[in-house]
Amino acid sequence: MAVVGANVCPIESLDYEIVENDAYKQDWRSRGRIQVFHYQILKWVLALLVGLIIGLIGFFSNIAVENIAGFKLLLMSNLMLQSRYNLAFLWHISCNAVLAAAAAALCAYIGPAAAGSGIPEVKAYLNGVDAPSILAPSTLFVKIFGSIFGVSAGFVMGKEGPMVHTGACVASLLGQGGSSKYGLTWNWLRYFKNDLDRRDLVTCGAAAGVTGAFRSPVGGVLFALEEATSWWRNALLWRTFSTTAVAAIVLRSLIEYCRSGNCGLFGKGGLIMFDVSSQVTSSSSSPAMDLPSVVLLAILGGLLGALFNLLLDRLLRVYSRINEKGAPCKIVLTVAVSLVTSCCSFGLPWLTACTPCPPEMAAIGRCPTIGRSGNFKNFRCPPGHYNGMASLFLNTNDDAIRNLFSGGTGGEFGVSTLVAFFAAVYSLSLVTYGVAVPAGLFIPMILSGASFGRLLGRLLCALTGLDTGLFALLGAASFLGGTMRMTVSVCVILLELTNDLLLLPLIMLVLLISKMVADCFNRGVYDQLMRMKGLPYLEAHGEPCMRSLVAGDVVSGPLITFSSVERVGVVVDTLRRTGHNGFPVIEDDPFGPAPELCGLVLRSHLLVLLQAKAFTAHPVKTGAAEVFRKLAPFDFAKPGSGKGLAVDDLDITEEEMAMYVDLHPIANRSPYTVVENMSLAKAAALFRELGLRHMCVVPRTPGMQPVVGILTRHDFMPEYIRGLFLNIMDP
Amino acid sequence: MAVVGANVCPIESLDYEIVENDAYKQDWRSRGRIQVFHYQILKWVLALLVGLIIGLIGFFSNIAVENIAGFKLLLMSNLMLQSRYNLAFLWHISCNAVLAAAAAALCAYIGPAAAGSGIPEVKAYLNGVDAPSILAPSTLFVKIFGSIFGVSAGFVMGKEGPMVHTGACVASLLGQGGSSKYGLTWNWLRYFKNDLDRRDLVTCGAAAGVTGAFRSPVGGVLFALEEATSWWRNALLWRTFSTTAVAAIVLRSLIEYCRSGNCGLFGKGGLIMFDVSSQVTSSSSSPAMDLPSVVLLAILGGLLGALFNLLLDRLLRVYSRINEKGAPCKIVLTVAVSLVTSCCSFGLPWLTACTPCPPEMAAIGRCPTIGRSGNFKNFRCPPGHYNGMASLFLNTNDDAIRNLFSGGTGGEFGVSTLVAFFAAVYSLSLVTYGVAVPAGLFIPMILSGASFGRLLGRLLCALTGLDTGLFALLGAASFLGGTMRMTVSVCVILLELTNDLLLLPLIMLVLLISKMVADCFNRGVYDQLMRMKGLPYLEAHGEPCMRSLVAGDVVSGPLITFSSVERVGVVVDTLRRTGHNGFPVIEDDPFGPAPELCGLVLRSHLLVLLQAKAFTAHPVKTGAAEVFRKLAPFDFAKPGSGKGLAVDDLDITEEEMAMYVDLHPIANRSPYTVVENMSLAKAAALFRELGLRHMCVVPRTPGMQPVVGILTRHDFMPEYIRGLFLNIMDP
Repeated sequence: MAVVGANVCPIESLDYEIVENDAYKQDWRSRGRIQVFHYQILKWVLALLVGLIIGLIGFFSNIAVENIAGFKLLLMSNLMLQSRYNLAFLWHISCNAVLAAAAAALCAYIGPAAAGSGIPEVKAYLNGVDAPSILAPSTLFVKIFGSIFGVSAGFVMGKEGPMVHTGACVASLLGQGGSSKYGLTWNWLRYFKNDLDRRDLVTCGAAAGVTGAFRSPVGGVLFALEEATSWWRNALLWRTFSTTAVAAIVLRSLIEYCRSGNCGLFGKGGLIMFDVSSQVTSSSSSPAMDLPSVVLLAILGGLLGALFNLLLDRLLRVYSRINEKGAPCKIVLTVAVSLVTSCCSFGLPWLTACTPCPPEMAAIGRCPTIGRSGNFKNFRCPPGHYNGMASLFLNTNDDAIRNLFSGGTGGEFGVSTLVAFFAAVYSLSLVTYGVAVPAGLFIPMILSGASFGRLLGRLLCALTGLDTGLFALLGAASFLGGTMRMTVSVCVILLELTNDLLLLPLIMLVLLISKMVADCFNRGVYDQLMRMKGLPYLEAHGEPCMRSLVAGDVVSGPLITFSSVERVGVVVDTLRRTGHNGFPVIEDDPFGPAPELCGLVLRSHLLVLLQAKAFTAHPVKTGAAEVFRKLAPFDFAKPGSGKGLAVDDLDITEEEMAMYVDLHPIANRSPYTVVENMSLAKAAALFRELGLRHMCVVPRTPGMQPVVGILTRHDFMPEYIRGLFLNIMDP
Repeated sequence: MAVVGANVCPIESLDYEIVENDAYKQDWRSRGRIQVFHYQILKWVLALLVGLIIGLIGFFSNIAVENIAGFKLLLMSNLMLQSRYNLAFLWHISCNAVLAAAAAALCAYIGPAAAGSGIPEVKAYLNGVDAPSILAPSTLFVKIFGSIFGVSAGFVMGKEGPMVHTGACVASLLGQGGSSKYGLTWNWLRYFKNDLDRRDLVTCGAAAGVTGAFRSPVGGVLFALEEATSWWRNALLWRTFSTTAVAAIVLRSLIEYCRSGNCGLFGKGGLIMFDVSSQVTSSSSSPAMDLPSVVLLAILGGLLGALFNLLLDRLLRVYSRINEKGAPCKIVLTVAVSLVTSCCSFGLPWLTACTPCPPEMAAIGRCPTIGRSGNFKNFRCPPGHYNGMASLFLNTNDDAIRNLFSGGTGGEFGVSTLVAFFAAVYSLSLVTYGVAVPAGLFIPMILSGASFGRLLGRLLCALTGLDTGLFALLGAASFLGGTMRMTVSVCVILLELTNDLLLLPLIMLVLLISKMVADCFNRGVYDQLMRMKGLPYLEAHGEPCMRSLVAGDVVSGPLITFSSVERVGVVVDTLRRTGHNGFPVIEDDPFGPAPELCGLVLRSHLLVLLQAKAFTAHPVKTGAAEVFRKLAPFDFAKPGSGKGLAVDDLDITEEEMAMYVDLHPIANRSPYTVVENMSLAKAAALFRELGLRHMCVVPRTPGMQPVVGILTRHDFMPEYIRGLFLNIMDP
């Protein structure tokens, strides 16, 4: 059980093992060259289609946000120009509250799993954790529209994390040909009815999501590799790259089309994602003097990032208690946070003094600016003056970042403005994340980091010749490194955003230091969120304590096995009684010399077999031919998300209950096994590397019962093992 | 047995399994917090040290090549200016031949394993194949100096592949604290005495090698990920990235230092790696018209790349027959190829007509150029004219590439010049690769591809508005995609070289198409070379035929087992008689109820135990304490490269031969096992994913002997399985 979007839902594991039963062998033998070709083509078409769709969604989401937020800001700006300040404030605060309420309502009533960033859920899914609503169509819908409304509402949140989740949802739904709940499954997608191919497609989708958010194809691939996936193959690298390439090309061409002004408020001014100019590097200073200040920035960024994770953890525990109380509470909380944000963004500029325009900017008419774009907002200031705080706060987040990154404008924002803005954004990021709205963490971290970096650049300008815009960029990097602990992908994403490879060494240095500093205190924010939600993530490396335990130690509960030819009643009762998903099948008396492990049957396969009613009156081995007269191999394939068969769907008469069913045809004849005295660390390595769902533990000494127990994902969780240990030590 | 640099040497497998014997448990229990900290620090220090050293080597190698080649070209140029053409030719041809002979002699006599690119060997090592000389100090020495001489000799070859091999060698030697052959092992490196940590370090080294060659840190990481490694973990991504970052920073700062003219002929003019200007994108044309020509380029590039692989395969078979005849033959072959190359590079410009300088270039005094740098070589041309062929051929390869990539100079090279140059370079690349000199394939492919692309750009200039320099870049991408089948890493390397991310979509498109086209014909060139050398590379996916076989089918030969307390004579005889490296230990009569698998012992551990002479007169279980009074756990650690203990090193008396030795303390108590009826495909997945060296096959039915056989890497090779099949079908 795990908390997904403040709702508790049952967790299942995905299974990447080849289930070598007769159905599989039959299916495999029946595949000719044409089927293999069909499968290959399908794999590529789906991957490219995912790229195309994500490109379109990314574009749509951008355009919607820019138009809604742009309209909101324009109207307010006009009211301000008419000096109708109260009306402007009212418009600002109510407009934000309505948008926030809409986003929260969508999220609370339609798709609770869509709240938050979504990256922890995607990461868990790609690790083999399947919570039903993670990738459902309703989640996709809420993720797209909730994120549009949320970002437009002026929250300090991004649409980048949600885009990753959106990408994963789109990929998952495409892989199933829609959702089986709505009857949308196509027969020609039958080759994709397994966890492995779906996982690959979802990996492509997550990568494309990053590309859709940042227009960064290489960064998308690296994100998928570094943060999202738990298994990786070279073939996947190449397919993921193609997907992100398609997404990037679609997005770029659409943006190009919009530049000519066809998309409403989009693409006219600064509302495109930050194209940071490369002039920020055009400073010539002595590296010996610059290095200490950059290192200082990185260390402080790492500390503040780790602090953010700590505070977020505490705050989310409070929030989850509020969110648990139901949908109305969620909406109220969201609106309350929205009111605070609106007051900050409208109020803080009033407290800030006006700054005279720099003469060279005034000369070319770029200061002060009236309207939406431009760095120097004239907010209630006399002519020739601008309000720095308004330039940052009464803007979309993207524009604020662009203003902070802009080079060659060292004195634009005063120290006090930057301090206030940093403090406000840092706290708003914290209080915003837990509300029931799809909310990414990239933009808040970039925003806080950039203001912090720029502030430090201002303070250290006597010591270093580096541009304050560059400092802002490095500050953003240090915050991303400090909270998310991503390195290569953040580096590449920042490079692709700034289009300046000469910055690479500095960005790398900052990321290395900030991650290292933050790692001393706590874990990355996504790992922390995953753990808080209770998603059973299998780490690549086991806990040290696993080395001193053996596999037999953690096997628990009475083992439930079936005979190879079993009474139907026993099977049905067992399925009703337990929630287990895999059962060892023991070949005993009439069918073999001594009890031996015949294989492992899955609950889903048992249900299909029972539904087909391939029963016999006496315990005889009917063989595969009998079963495959009634069932095709594809009937055993895993259905898409949504419910598969349940044991209550079966309609079995009392008479049939007394009959027998031959489990040989559906038993996975060679499940992966470990000997009971293998150390848990080695067993975990096997379990993790092969992506198993069930692993049989066999006894060391022959002649006893052939299986000692079954290990599942749950048995490798550090919490479970620690609990077990306490019990052992406390008899 | 495999061919490494035309020498046949025995192959061993690396072992990434945790050998869970008493020695390991003792060692693990004895590690406190300080030891763990020591290990962590060491891991990072070594990784960063690798980066630093590779940076320095990369710089040294660049500076040496530029100075030697620069001196050679300058002298020739001066002789030409004095119209002493015969002398110039004689100087050119003899200088090249001497350098070539020196490189070949180094390679033939000191380090035969250093011939060729080295990437296939590194790839095989990282897959778990250990041929002793692959990463030896002699190989490192020859790789560095052989490659410097070879590239200076004007061969069409690069120093990029050799840099990767150099990086791997440096990492491997550092990880062992030098070579045990020369007695250079330090005790504080004892935690690195295992294959897993060495593999990680070698991965870092290979990535740093790419960075050292191309100054491309992200490209280096992606190269390691895409082409080099077979196993990958997220923790490694982060460490590899730090290594390449250090290498890039070192290299950049040294090059910066050289720009002021402190490094001889280095860094004055064009002799730094190509800094392609971004102006090549500054063309505005309709994408609808450009796309077909780019697609055409990519398809042709893919075809020519596949053809290159095919021809190279044929040619190398001929060459290997010559190289087998001994070192003198190798040298003669190398000098012969050098003579052909020199004649081409000196002769072809004579056959090319002079071209009048473009007026705008002549006006600013940049045409013709006399001396080393510049695009427009005046080679026996009247004033105001230049010789296009000389600009390409009488230059270092790096300069030629830069000339081809240069934008805004559409008409610089005539169609006939480009045709002749392309044909010459393509054939010279083919005939050069097989000679006994460290030779990379990157530069030849970039050179051929760039000339081909530029040629196509000239021919299609009516159809497309893209710059011919951009076409040259895309041509290089298409050739790299067509031969090496790398995608993401080539893309990033080209981006980091050109520093222009706007090119990304086009480069990606070209790479995707060219790889796809070439994949229809044959495999990538490195896979092909690995196969030709007989390196037993384990593919990520097994052959389809493996699905219809079971593990028991491929078990062959009589199984050799030991009792858990065995006669010393039996052990020594067995070790003498067989070359096996792992033996199952069977617990039988006095020590257990029925014969059962006690574990697996490794040859290396047996030898250490025998040398320590922990023998008893009677067959009793002495236990671990007895053994660890004579031996420390680290005595069992794997020594560095070079010979470990051999069975002939043992000095065991006849009397001792009749005594008994207890194998319990050194037996890996829980080796990974598979049941004999598991499909070979599943067994292969287990073997590959966990990086095993030995895998025990246990019988399905209990009560018989506890082990049926042992599977090793060899048993999963498609060639072996196919051979076995023929035998089965042909009784």
